[in-house]
Amino acid sequence: MMEQLQNQLIDWRRDFHKYPELGFLEMRTASIVADTLEKLGFDLLLGKEVMEPTSCMGKPGADDTRSHIEWARANGAIEKYIPHFEDGFTAVVGVLDSNTPGPTVAYRVDMDALPIYESESDDHLPNQEGFRSSNNNMHACGHDVHTAVGLGLARLISENKENIRGRIKLIFQPAEEGARGAKSMVDAGVVDDVDYFIASHIGLGVHFNHFVASNNGFLASSKLDVKFTGDSSHAGGHPEEGKNAMLAAAAAVSNLHSIPRHADGATRINVGELHSGSGRNIIPDTAELKMELRGETTVLNEYMKNYAEEIIKGAALMHQVDYEIDLVGEAIEAKGSPELAEILKESADNIGLTSILEDNSAAGSEDATYFIDTVQKRGGYATYCVFGTELAAGHHNERFDTHEDSLMTSVQVLFDSAKALTHE
Amino acid sequence: MMEQLQNQLIDWRRDFHKYPELGFLEMRTASIVADTLEKLGFDLLLGKEVMEPTSCMGKPGADDTRSHIEWARANGAIEKYIPHFEDGFTAVVGVLDSNTPGPTVAYRVDMDALPIYESESDDHLPNQEGFRSSNNNMHACGHDVHTAVGLGLARLISENKENIRGRIKLIFQPAEEGARGAKSMVDAGVVDDVDYFIASHIGLGVHFNHFVASNNGFLASSKLDVKFTGDSSHAGGHPEEGKNAMLAAAAAVSNLHSIPRHADGATRINVGELHSGSGRNIIPDTAELKMELRGETTVLNEYMKNYAEEIIKGAALMHQVDYEIDLVGEAIEAKGSPELAEILKESADNIGLTSILEDNSAAGSEDATYFIDTVQKRGGYATYCVFGTELAAGHHNERFDTHEDSLMTSVQVLFDSAKALTHE
Amino acid sequence: MMEQLQNQLIDWRRDFHKYPELGFLEMRTASIVADTLEKLGFDLLLGKEVMEPTSCMGKPGADDTRSHIEWARANGAIEKYIPHFEDGFTAVVGVLDSNTPGPTVAYRVDMDALPIYESESDDHLPNQEGFRSSNNNMHACGHDVHTAVGLGLARLISENKENIRGRIKLIFQPAEEGARGAKSMVDAGVVDDVDYFIASHIGLGVHFNHFVASNNGFLASSKLDVKFTGDSSHAGGHPEEGKNAMLAAAAAVSNLHSIPRHADGATRINVGELHSGSGRNIIPDTAELKMELRGETTVLNEYMKNYAEEIIKGAALMHQVDYEIDLVGEAIEAKGSPELAEILKESADNIGLTSILEDNSAAGSEDATYFIDTVQKRGGYATYCVFGTELAAGHHNERFDTHEDSLMTSVQVLFDSAKALTHE
Amino acid sequence: MMEQLQNQLIDWRRDFHKYPELGFLEMRTASIVADTLEKLGFDLLLGKEVMEPTSCMGKPGADDTRSHIEWARANGAIEKYIPHFEDGFTAVVGVLDSNTPGPTVAYRVDMDALPIYESESDDHLPNQEGFRSSNNNMHACGHDVHTAVGLGLARLISENKENIRGRIKLIFQPAEEGARGAKSMVDAGVVDDVDYFIASHIGLGVHFNHFVASNNGFLASSKLDVKFTGDSSHAGGHPEEGKNAMLAAAAAVSNLHSIPRHADGATRINVGELHSGSGRNIIPDTAELKMELRGETTVLNEYMKNYAEEIIKGAALMHQVDYEIDLVGEAIEAKGSPELAEILKESADNIGLTSILEDNSAAGSEDATYFIDTVQKRGGYATYCVFGTELAAGHHNERFDTHEDSLMTSVQVLFDSAKALTHE
Repeated sequence: MMEQLQNQLIDWRRDFHKYPELGFLEMRTASIVADTLEKLGFDLLLGKEVMEPTSCMGKPGADDTRSHIEWARANGAIEKYIPHFEDGFTAVVGVLDSNTPGPTVAYRVDMDALPIYESESDDHLPNQEGFRSSNNNMHACGHDVHTAVGLGLARLISENKENIRGRIKLIFQPAEEGARGAKSMVDAGVVDDVDYFIASHIGLGVHFNHFVASNNGFLASSKLDVKFTGDSSHAGGHPEEGKNAMLAAAAAVSNLHSIPRHADGATRINVGELHSGSGRNIIPDTAELKMELRGETTVLNEYMKNYAEEIIKGAALMHQVDYEIDLVGEAIEAKGSPELAEILKESADNIGLTSILEDNSAAGSEDATYFIDTVQKRGGYATYCVFGTELAAGHHNERFDTHEDSLMTSVQVLFDSAKALTHE
Repeated sequence: MMEQLQNQLIDWRRDFHKYPELGFLEMRTASIVADTLEKLGFDLLLGKEVMEPTSCMGKPGADDTRSHIEWARANGAIEKYIPHFEDGFTAVVGVLDSNTPGPTVAYRVDMDALPIYESESDDHLPNQEGFRSSNNNMHACGHDVHTAVGLGLARLISENKENIRGRIKLIFQPAEEGARGAKSMVDAGVVDDVDYFIASHIGLGVHFNHFVASNNGFLASSKLDVKFTGDSSHAGGHPEEGKNAMLAAAAAVSNLHSIPRHADGATRINVGELHSGSGRNIIPDTAELKMELRGETTVLNEYMKNYAEEIIKGAALMHQVDYEIDLVGEAIEAKGSPELAEILKESADNIGLTSILEDNSAAGSEDATYFIDTVQKRGGYATYCVFGTELAAGHHNERFDTHEDSLMTSVQVLFDSAKALTHE
Repeated sequence: MMEQLQNQLIDWRRDFHKYPELGFLEMRTASIVADTLEKLGFDLLLGKEVMEPTSCMGKPGADDTRSHIEWARANGAIEKYIPHFEDGFTAVVGVLDSNTPGPTVAYRVDMDALPIYESESDDHLPNQEGFRSSNNNMHACGHDVHTAVGLGLARLISENKENIRGRIKLIFQPAEEGARGAKSMVDAGVVDDVDYFIASHIGLGVHFNHFVASNNGFLASSKLDVKFTGDSSHAGGHPEEGKNAMLAAAAAVSNLHSIPRHADGATRINVGELHSGSGRNIIPDTAELKMELRGETTVLNEYMKNYAEEIIKGAALMHQVDYEIDLVGEAIEAKGSPELAEILKESADNIGLTSILEDNSAAGSEDATYFIDTVQKRGGYATYCVFGTELAAGHHNERFDTHEDSLMTSVQVLFDSAKALTHE
Repeated sequence: MMEQLQNQLIDWRRDFHKYPELGFLEMRTASIVADTLEKLGFDLLLGKEVMEPTSCMGKPGADDTRSHIEWARANGAIEKYIPHFEDGFTAVVGVLDSNTPGPTVAYRVDMDALPIYESESDDHLPNQEGFRSSNNNMHACGHDVHTAVGLGLARLISENKENIRGRIKLIFQPAEEGARGAKSMVDAGVVDDVDYFIASHIGLGVHFNHFVASNNGFLASSKLDVKFTGDSSHAGGHPEEGKNAMLAAAAAVSNLHSIPRHADGATRINVGELHSGSGRNIIPDTAELKMELRGETTVLNEYMKNYAEEIIKGAALMHQVDYEIDLVGEAIEAKGSPELAEILKESADNIGLTSILEDNSAAGSEDATYFIDTVQKRGGYATYCVFGTELAAGHHNERFDTHEDSLMTSVQVLFDSAKALTHE
């Protein structure tokens, strides 16, 4: 049976890999997830049932969403579920209730891909084996693996229902990339009844057959899109008639990077993209920035965000242009519960993985922190664990690839934790 | 006969309008010009015979050039001439020698279009009449008219050879937009034997049936493409490992605009475009600027350019990134010769135009100034005249259009000047 | 008699030179002027009678004013007049009414010195002759000469009353340096009855025995003092607790200099002084700027000033500091009345000076322009003339000195104009 | 005897307090220290014998040094020693050799004051008791206390010679403020024979009768004076002729604060002072900055310093001005040796102080770190301890004052450590 599951995990993973979908557009993926869970006997909660629309961040516009539905339909989405997802609310929650007393244990799985053009190199496995991306996006962070593992976990739970007490909740979240989707699920109350919460990730620098039970050290982060809008004018004829959005942007960039360091801990600022102007001889009337702030704590991130907003406002004022700031992603700090990490570590040790309890060195951001924080605040336990794997290239690289043997291992550890937690 | 010429002028103009070609890519246009001139009895000088390759500025790369040849072949270019133009040296000079003693009189015609998407509005004449651009470029500055007028002038001269003494030189120049092509023709010696030089333009704010014999006031100008290149790095994980090209660019933009004003006259600076970075969470490793300097005199423009180069160099040094500065266009100052303007004014008066001798208010730039300056320096006379027309919309606007009656008028004035000048 | 006047002019000038007083502190000077005019039979208007307090710009504080009174008393001020001047309103207007019908002709004289330490060099005439400044200020722009010439003119008028019709108004203005005092006299109505207005200056690059009847080309100008105020903090211990006024100032300086050039004419911007911070390891909580804007016209200067205020406001906002902007000086554009210039030129020609009618090349600023503008607007005539002299060193230089023969010449031309104008 | 010592400590401390001397100018202080040590039987090493001239940082110029000699002579300096100190090399090392085998134990004492005007408030003890500063400087960081304690320690050692083995080395260092003097003593080899090194400080936030045996957490730091030099010009007449040092400085300030954060730990940047320009209407030809960099480690501080130098160089280049960078102070990181801290803690516990072993929270900088680093590198032990006291106001405040009972306690702990260390 395990070999059969192993094959199915690989099939799932390769299928998702071939049809990558960006955040809030995981319509095909979500329809397959929903269909599989339903067939395995899970109760489904879909789309807006588990997402608060006003809490979505950086959601694509209506046009992009509509045109993606067509792509999804043409590429194997299961029509029956499309109506739930068609406005871009693509979350799926599957609940399996044992109808025996016991805790509620939740597992979070992310499903979205990245706007990266996948390598066409001969030694890139997905290319060799024919499951390279069929569009311009790519699963370059392993969320295809996560989704497959989530379904594998669902299958084991379904087939071993008698070993489970309490309730199992599988949370398939959209738009983890950019920290955009988790908050809408939290705000919809998805973890309000959860006693144990486990998020997991593949890779992240951990070796194959190694395991980190509690990956801490996430930086709180805010992602902002900023747009300055002025007036254009002919640069030779009437320079004084322009309202120069690029001058505002340049002042903003210089000054944003000069936000003072904070004595309480590490902070970060980056303006990652800046695009301004429409022609050499025209005073630029627009400037668009993609930026992010980070802080070792949520308070430090807020300090950065608040200061950044003042700088943007001041820069606009200086050159008399308008500005808009859109919050297109956000994550908070979080730290795993040691008690829960211990249980996961045991599960990993049981199947022979080399495991450590916690790692505090990470410097990335994750919106699973919203789930973790909410569960812990209501007295529950939560953690974010990492399954090691060999990587062909780093995360978000066009040649990113994982070791498929990690699929089965991940499913086993998670299933084992489900049993252990519901039998406490 | 005049009616027939009028019809031919319109046919030519509409044909060129429908097949607009960008600077240094005027292969189809130049092949038709060459063919027409040859049939009218002009001796031809083509491509590198009349262009100094090292003096071309802002020339498209080899790939763009090659792919345009295919377009030109598929859209009516005359194959016989293509070999002369296929490396993007698209100038045509036609010489008609009367074999009688007399001066050499040159007329300059520009042929290139702009990267503007032409209006599809119902009330846009080229759309109504079926000669709207067949590609994504547009003749939005009337160079289609200029080319047609140049050919009309050639025809009248050819048909009235007996009225001409000395030599007539018709200079069809590539890449006037961005001030990129004239210098290469000057440096190839095209006007080294020219006694009288006349450049002309349609429109530019002058009313229909009005004429300006000497349009002065051109600003000297340099167009620069600047590229800063640093190193990328993950903005959360290792901000210190990046070399931030955007910080260099922002410092450059702020400081470029703060180049001191000059007591000797007007100067201009504009960074019209800035594009930097590849992702929100990545330290930006590139920043590309399109900028221009201007000055009321060549000396003032040089002052601006020299200062700008120091700022760019210093900004790169500050953030330890590399930089490249490409000069992609340049024009100098020039002032028409009053003696020649008088003769043109008479020609215009003769056919009933309302004409003025000179206008010094312009604030644009033109590379015809290289021709003018060279001719004047060797003792000749030169001017830049303007034929008024009603415009549907301003120059470089997607709805730009001219009154076709101006075609004939322009040809007449220029032909009349040819007769007058060669009979002095 | 003329030789006696010449000696008196030199005495007056040397006395004023030895006791230089800064703007709004000309208490000793004004008391001597008032006393002299009164003795010559002029009616006096003093201090606030001819100054609108709210229109004074850049006026010293109460402490400086009070302590200067003591200096003035100790150095020969005439006690009787001190009460009129003791709050720093140091203007004197002397009116001589012929009681015959005729126009009102006004002459403006400025009296203030500069905060420059006068040269102690052996070849500096004031040092040789014992009239070098007795304090740390210096008459380095010739206002000592102007005051002496004004008194000389008063004497000739008084002694030749029978040759005058109408009324003569001698306006002794405080605080011309920095363009601070004229507006308060204009706003107090001092020239509301004036038909002809003549301001004059010594030197300014014009040769000895040369004369410019109408010196135009003054730039309109605004002088601003700007102060940013934030919070200090220990730079090592708590950088985040500071509100960094220097960062605001640096952003302001860079962006002020990048205010776009204006197509309508020349503009200027300078931040001439910047002082910020109190210690290497302390986040700077203050930054003080002394700056000025200029424009070829009043409208252009307003454009600069308005833009500058937005930049200052925006820079403060960016770094969350407070700001204050004080207008400490202002001048407008003005152009002399050709009709009046003609009359002055004749007066100059009459005594053998080499004179020209107008010079438009100046690039400085002057608040006499407020008088000129007001007189012209009510239908009168006004001009600003220059008496040439050899200069030992340029204006505002520590070795500035003038040729004392120019004193008599100046008085003669001005007196001649008074006769000519009142006899029209 | 102890009461007598207590009185002497107070006398010494009040005397030094009344005659504060800035770094490298401690001539009076050093002469009294030398005289006292000599009388107590110590061998003396003075001035350049224990200072490497080229390693002094931020040393006052020759004029300031010369004029201070006069002050010192007039205020009680002991003439005999002045020749050693008169070039501003004011270190004193006293060595007492027991001529028995044993380790060399060194104590470092700093002697310099701050350019702070001491409070004249009635409730400021030095004012009440008549030992307020007699000049414009102030011992506002307790170095007067340190010097008194150093002499008290010398006396106890001298009087108890029989209890000491090995050698005692008392290092009286100039110019600790600004981290300027220690390196010159280290480079002169002062601690090349030292086995145990102890620096101590009074106050620093530790309570009275409390003691910290190892105060770690010092940030490595570099102090730079930067000067930009350009050309002045009249801002209205010839703005283009200036080389604007303020524009360079403003660019430097903005960009210095934007040096990227470093993933390896905390960094700091501050431009604490900026002074530029000489008049409102003059293009500023100078700009002077006082700045400092810091890093949690010496490597991090070097990263900041190297980046800062590139920014300064680039900013100068941008505006074509010259620049000078002077290193006027520097400190490295250091961490106390736990073994030595244990011994000190015992000494403190012995006399009833409440003591802790180490404190890692500091965020200041200290050049004692050079001594510590050198001693540890050659295998010795070193620490920096703190004697608590009640403070009337914080360090570097004009009302700073300490509890005089701390004098005796400090001497006792240090003397006890000397006995303990030489008897191991």
